[in-house]
Amino acid sequence: MTRIPFEEMKATVKKAFLLAGMPEEKAETCARIHTESSRDGVYSHGLNRVERFVDYIGKGWVNVHADPTLDLNLGAMETYNGNLGVGITNALFAMNRATEIAEKNGLGLVSLNNTTHWMRGGAYGWLAAEKGYIGICWTNTESCMPAWGAKSQGIGNNPFIMAVPRKEGHIVLDMAMSQYSYGKLQVTRLKNQKLPYPGGFDNDGQLTDDPGAIEETRRILPMGYWKGSGFAVLLDVLSSLLSGGLTTAGIDKFDKGSCGSCCQVFIAINPLKINSQEFIDQALNGTVDQLRSSVPAKENGEIFYPGEQSLRTRHENMELGIPVDDGIWVKVKELANVN
Amino acid sequence: MTRIPFEEMKATVKKAFLLAGMPEEKAETCARIHTESSRDGVYSHGLNRVERFVDYIGKGWVNVHADPTLDLNLGAMETYNGNLGVGITNALFAMNRATEIAEKNGLGLVSLNNTTHWMRGGAYGWLAAEKGYIGICWTNTESCMPAWGAKSQGIGNNPFIMAVPRKEGHIVLDMAMSQYSYGKLQVTRLKNQKLPYPGGFDNDGQLTDDPGAIEETRRILPMGYWKGSGFAVLLDVLSSLLSGGLTTAGIDKFDKGSCGSCCQVFIAINPLKINSQEFIDQALNGTVDQLRSSVPAKENGEIFYPGEQSLRTRHENMELGIPVDDGIWVKVKELANVN
Repeated sequence: MTRIPFEEMKATVKKAFLLAGMPEEKAETCARIHTESSRDGVYSHGLNRVERFVDYIGKGWVNVHADPTLDLNLGAMETYNGNLGVGITNALFAMNRATEIAEKNGLGLVSLNNTTHWMRGGAYGWLAAEKGYIGICWTNTESCMPAWGAKSQGIGNNPFIMAVPRKEGHIVLDMAMSQYSYGKLQVTRLKNQKLPYPGGFDNDGQLTDDPGAIEETRRILPMGYWKGSGFAVLLDVLSSLLSGGLTTAGIDKFDKGSCGSCCQVFIAINPLKINSQEFIDQALNGTVDQLRSSVPAKENGEIFYPGEQSLRTRHENMELGIPVDDGIWVKVKELANVN
Repeated sequence: MTRIPFEEMKATVKKAFLLAGMPEEKAETCARIHTESSRDGVYSHGLNRVERFVDYIGKGWVNVHADPTLDLNLGAMETYNGNLGVGITNALFAMNRATEIAEKNGLGLVSLNNTTHWMRGGAYGWLAAEKGYIGICWTNTESCMPAWGAKSQGIGNNPFIMAVPRKEGHIVLDMAMSQYSYGKLQVTRLKNQKLPYPGGFDNDGQLTDDPGAIEETRRILPMGYWKGSGFAVLLDVLSSLLSGGLTTAGIDKFDKGSCGSCCQVFIAINPLKINSQEFIDQALNGTVDQLRSSVPAKENGEIFYPGEQSLRTRHENMELGIPVDDGIWVKVKELANVN
């Protein structure tokens, strides 16, 4: 396995983005976010997603020169048109704006309509937490999963993120509504492995842990069966109603790549407007302590708080370099015109 | 199976609550909510929960004379002390207050600390939707589930509700973080049946669909494995940080019944401040249409939008009467001093 230092990866990705026509500042920001995603172990939306993003720019599905424009200001809530601009910079703008509103009001909600794929949703939760804010955000997507009871694709996997700032490590949940991503199915199949738990249905309509069988039917499983399916529907309609943008059904019709003209919601809350730092520290550390003092299911097993494993991967990858798939790294270097 | 008309059930439950010492108005409200929960098919938190609630009043764990008092007003956000009052009336107050704030500001967030069990969380989502508001709410609970990777209880099942008003039937998600409730395990075991999908771990640490084996270990499964576990942790710490109340770890120590001194968060949003009714109707009905036009997994299968099955059960139970467990109905009649 090849490992690439953070700065080398970021510089290479930035060159690829500049060559694709992105303005300097956006290329810098997007290269950083893609590299940070790989650094934290979310390879699918980090380095591995660079090629597809460049392809979308080429097709005109992402407008690298567009910026969000205000649609509606309701005080604690603001709605913006993402103008099919770069998903990452649109989303960063929106979460940053939500924290500005929260600084004044305690709470800010910023929604984006007509935006594009934000890559790793967790990036915006970590951003809020780094700034000292509770962050909640989600996106809708095109149909990529059957609703519960269906075998055809009808709902998005609509990633949902919640982040709480904590000195010793932020508590961050970043979950899509499918039990596994298509990326996870592919990686597991290529290793000739089974999924740890059933992840979808095979051609006979039986639950299976065989990733290839699920890739064939595309009947990936909502997390928690009917629960993740219902949650996906609610996140979808709320994205649309809060932003004035398209639902999953509308994104399907728009049909300009994954998440073309999707909607996103960003909520920031300043926890220090409600409680003292001392109270917050006690609540969070008490919870982490309670998790850690649980009896492990397996001997010498560890119980992690949400976000803890990302942080471990981050430290490891910063120390040793970020692991890459050699074929993908060569491809990105080609896009960057680097040998 | 005995079926009891709505009004008869409500009048009987009200008598039981009055005899337990509840003031007239609260007894009326709580009897209505418990009966509506059974009417909608949530028997576990409707009629079946009356005896335990009366027991909690007797033990002094619920103060039937207490009302919420304002702790903090931040404009769009307000925090109240529930004063260990009746969970249902506290929660109704909080969601109603959130809609009042949303009427002015577009969005209102009301949190409760030091409250008690709200019974069926869906009640407050349906309330918001009936009034024309998007409603989001959740509660934390005592530990009743092992965190992912653990075998001892360390996290709550923290029900989470999202509701969107829709003329033809509100879209309502009401889900706990466990795949199944202990009530579902018990009912399934008593029928000598298996769960539809694995719901926890047996004594050998294997996933099982045998409800009795899970009741023995109390290792119920978080929905979506690690995902529901992480979501439960985030909902818990957010409840505490937004309200200034206890986390699950604190509720465990407080130890006055299920959800004694728990915290809850209620968010209401007025969708008409953001979009026209026409836009909203199109977004919601387009989504419902997309679900309904999915290819069913089973021949003649139906795909439901979240909340649709509750509505069907409601109509059936209003027409035919609400089904009761005979032993439970006799017990509630005893508590009501009714023959």
